[in-house]
Amino acid sequence: MEKALEKLHEKTKLAKTLVGIDALLGWDQEVYMPAKGINARAEQIAWVSGRIHEAVTDPEIGRLLEELGASEANPSGDPSRPEADRNYIRFVRRAYLQQTRIPLALVEELSKAQSLGQAAWAEARKKDDFPSFKPHLEKLLALQKKVAAHGGFEKKPYDYHLDNHEAGATEASIAAVFGPLGKDLKRILGKIAARHQVADPAAGKKFPAAGQEAFGRIVMEDMGYELERGRLDVSTHPFTTTLASDDVRITTRYHEDNLLSSLFSIVHEAGHALYELGVDEALKDDILSDGCSMGVHESQSRFWENTVGRSRAFWKRYFGKLQGIFPAELGKVAQEDFYRAVNRVEIQPIRVEADEVSYGLHVILRFELERALFSGALEAAAVPGEWRKMAKEWLGLDLKNDAMGCLQDIHWSMGAFGYFPSYALGNLYAAQFAESMAKAIGPIEPLVEAGNFAPVLGWLRTNIHRWGSSLLPSEVCERATGKPLDPAHFIAYLEKKYGEVYGF
Amino acid sequence: MEKALEKLHEKTKLAKTLVGIDALLGWDQEVYMPAKGINARAEQIAWVSGRIHEAVTDPEIGRLLEELGASEANPSGDPSRPEADRNYIRFVRRAYLQQTRIPLALVEELSKAQSLGQAAWAEARKKDDFPSFKPHLEKLLALQKKVAAHGGFEKKPYDYHLDNHEAGATEASIAAVFGPLGKDLKRILGKIAARHQVADPAAGKKFPAAGQEAFGRIVMEDMGYELERGRLDVSTHPFTTTLASDDVRITTRYHEDNLLSSLFSIVHEAGHALYELGVDEALKDDILSDGCSMGVHESQSRFWENTVGRSRAFWKRYFGKLQGIFPAELGKVAQEDFYRAVNRVEIQPIRVEADEVSYGLHVILRFELERALFSGALEAAAVPGEWRKMAKEWLGLDLKNDAMGCLQDIHWSMGAFGYFPSYALGNLYAAQFAESMAKAIGPIEPLVEAGNFAPVLGWLRTNIHRWGSSLLPSEVCERATGKPLDPAHFIAYLEKKYGEVYGF
Repeated sequence: MEKALEKLHEKTKLAKTLVGIDALLGWDQEVYMPAKGINARAEQIAWVSGRIHEAVTDPEIGRLLEELGASEANPSGDPSRPEADRNYIRFVRRAYLQQTRIPLALVEELSKAQSLGQAAWAEARKKDDFPSFKPHLEKLLALQKKVAAHGGFEKKPYDYHLDNHEAGATEASIAAVFGPLGKDLKRILGKIAARHQVADPAAGKKFPAAGQEAFGRIVMEDMGYELERGRLDVSTHPFTTTLASDDVRITTRYHEDNLLSSLFSIVHEAGHALYELGVDEALKDDILSDGCSMGVHESQSRFWENTVGRSRAFWKRYFGKLQGIFPAELGKVAQEDFYRAVNRVEIQPIRVEADEVSYGLHVILRFELERALFSGALEAAAVPGEWRKMAKEWLGLDLKNDAMGCLQDIHWSMGAFGYFPSYALGNLYAAQFAESMAKAIGPIEPLVEAGNFAPVLGWLRTNIHRWGSSLLPSEVCERATGKPLDPAHFIAYLEKKYGEVYGF
Repeated sequence: MEKALEKLHEKTKLAKTLVGIDALLGWDQEVYMPAKGINARAEQIAWVSGRIHEAVTDPEIGRLLEELGASEANPSGDPSRPEADRNYIRFVRRAYLQQTRIPLALVEELSKAQSLGQAAWAEARKKDDFPSFKPHLEKLLALQKKVAAHGGFEKKPYDYHLDNHEAGATEASIAAVFGPLGKDLKRILGKIAARHQVADPAAGKKFPAAGQEAFGRIVMEDMGYELERGRLDVSTHPFTTTLASDDVRITTRYHEDNLLSSLFSIVHEAGHALYELGVDEALKDDILSDGCSMGVHESQSRFWENTVGRSRAFWKRYFGKLQGIFPAELGKVAQEDFYRAVNRVEIQPIRVEADEVSYGLHVILRFELERALFSGALEAAAVPGEWRKMAKEWLGLDLKNDAMGCLQDIHWSMGAFGYFPSYALGNLYAAQFAESMAKAIGPIEPLVEAGNFAPVLGWLRTNIHRWGSSLLPSEVCERATGKPLDPAHFIAYLEKKYGEVYGF
């Protein structure tokens, strides 16, 4: 290998090592840290974040990129190099430019505000106390506006954060997709509302956490999520985190009166984890061993959660096992009734528990609030009121408290603005990928029904996972499906599935 | 505060932050890391260790110490400063000199060898496969000899490592204590062997881990170990680790056929944790918020484990609770029989499960092996054979495998040579501290029987814990007891207690 390229890999591998340390500090804070450890932890995370910033902004990286011929006109450097090297150089250059624009002091201030913000949010949610979280939200928003000002953006500060999660996205481009998507979702919800509601045979019953966990573990291991390279733990908000290429962990949460919330979180997070674990060996523990965008990441989690986990074929395989774990509660329930209940569409306030159809509207609500917060049209103090107003208008909900409203998600407490739209993009990608997968390996239903997930995971690894972040999301989509992202696939998927469930 | 002193505190607080990060990486590796995460973890730990080395060897520290007037002749700097500042300066100077002598590359090599050594040891112990561990032991020994050569020592390389754990200790000084101690212990064991053995009413019964854990948690919380500032988890070898002044964690292990092994590990480790948690507020999250030596640290763990946990008063309070958890197994057992069984002296191969009397001989065996390994009189390859020979000679044991012999302890796999003697010193300190405590607060038995541990913990905090590492072990001993360490207290304690248990 060229000397300069080798040196650049040393630099980016170091960055990856530090990102793994940071991930452990964050994971532990969420799942095992004693409450009073928070102040020292904030110091530890701030320090590591500072070192990450130093590592990714090391001027030597700029020098090496120059030596390798990477420039505005030619971001991948010399076109005669192998494609893998060109993709690597392009990615490093993009990341380097993104990072060198943010001053170290601001990165450290943000990191500390994130740690404190998360802890404050967890308390505020527990006590339904938005005012105690408000100063944290204000601080994080102000800091992220500063970050955007330093980082540069297409037209609006919010664009910077959207592009950060989905390369190329802007407020305008997302609005252009979400406008029609919102209308289509409302149209389908209208059709559903006109039909008889399906009954939920699990309603009112209690399902102890131990049984839920046992079932979740069966499913996640069948999916191919191996415990030699991962773990399942409990946290307030489920998440996936990558400590290393061979150490990708997930969490869930258990509610005794909600049988499937923990399962779908496990399947969702395991979908994220399989993506990170499926990156090509050659990219291991280097900067490209990551997902290519938040939207594509969400396509993986939501493919497993919805396309697989909420399919009739899935419940043909697993309902008997679930009945075996909860015989008193489910022994007399018919499989088909259970399947329909799993896909019951019922608008309710919590995004992560929303059905596939109304889910997109939860995301659009957050997108609209974020763009207003960034444009200055909305103040942090007005968020609870505005959230309730929009929940009423769009979802027909009368929210009783903020814990079920603007305090339900962890994202803003981590300063993660511009993240939510990815969830909706993920659904769109997932539907398009699933169609291409079926063309290549045949219908997935018989495989799922047989618990034979290897061909499914194999297609995802070959067409999505192995690239890591070496390709742009649009390139992954083009290579995997032969065309750009097209929301029509998702709408068609919803029409077909829910037409059948609700009989329209 | 003087500017230079303030700057020095900034430097040492940074070091403490990094040590906390390192502690988390190590803790996670032992308790939760997926098996295949080990290689990346070794990289992460090596990197953090390098940064710790940089932080504690920062030449600016040397310059500030000079500015503060610290020198060979006057290690605490200007004698007009408050005692706390002088102790701080003295400690920082000692640590700085110790650290600046070890080259960074060696520190990093050692750190990596430790990570890999620990993983290899865990496997080797599981499979009773010393040969697979031997190259790690050789490597760690060779590295620690190099460290000693760089660090400097009184007369022998082993002295360096002894002094590292107990400031001022040498091979000769330890041998001078262990010679007579070994004889006294053998003498008491001889008296015991001449009496009827006490029966173990728990022998042959199974005690599920969940019940053991529930009981251990009751005791540790009664002791004053709060879960807001700590946690209890499971690992192969029990340990305590400090992630921050308000985040000190312990581990234990459960064996269904050994009711009390998990309990005494919990009480032992909670004793260590209470020490770290009891350091004065003013020293919080700075370099003095630590124990003053391994020996004094062990005095805290062994005081709680033996003086408290193996006392008749303790079992007067807790035996009923334990019976309540295991009614079928213990319902018909008399409290006094149980108490005597807890103090049953029976030579067996595992150090951490040894009784109070033979325990010292396990330590002396390791001390003799370590001095031979360091002098070159013994090769790593010969360790299993020599261990068996000495176990036969001193303890009368015929060892069947190495898992019960030289593979039983984690220490060497971490490169921790010179550590074991601290365990025996801990017993000696504990006995001497307990006598002084009783003079100050009255007999502790009624307090223990009432579960009223606050006065006991209070005396330890005031006389031992609060100093952190601001005093030398000899100074702590002098201040707490009014005289230097004297092994007679421990021997007297054993004679009295075991004379009563065995009737001699």
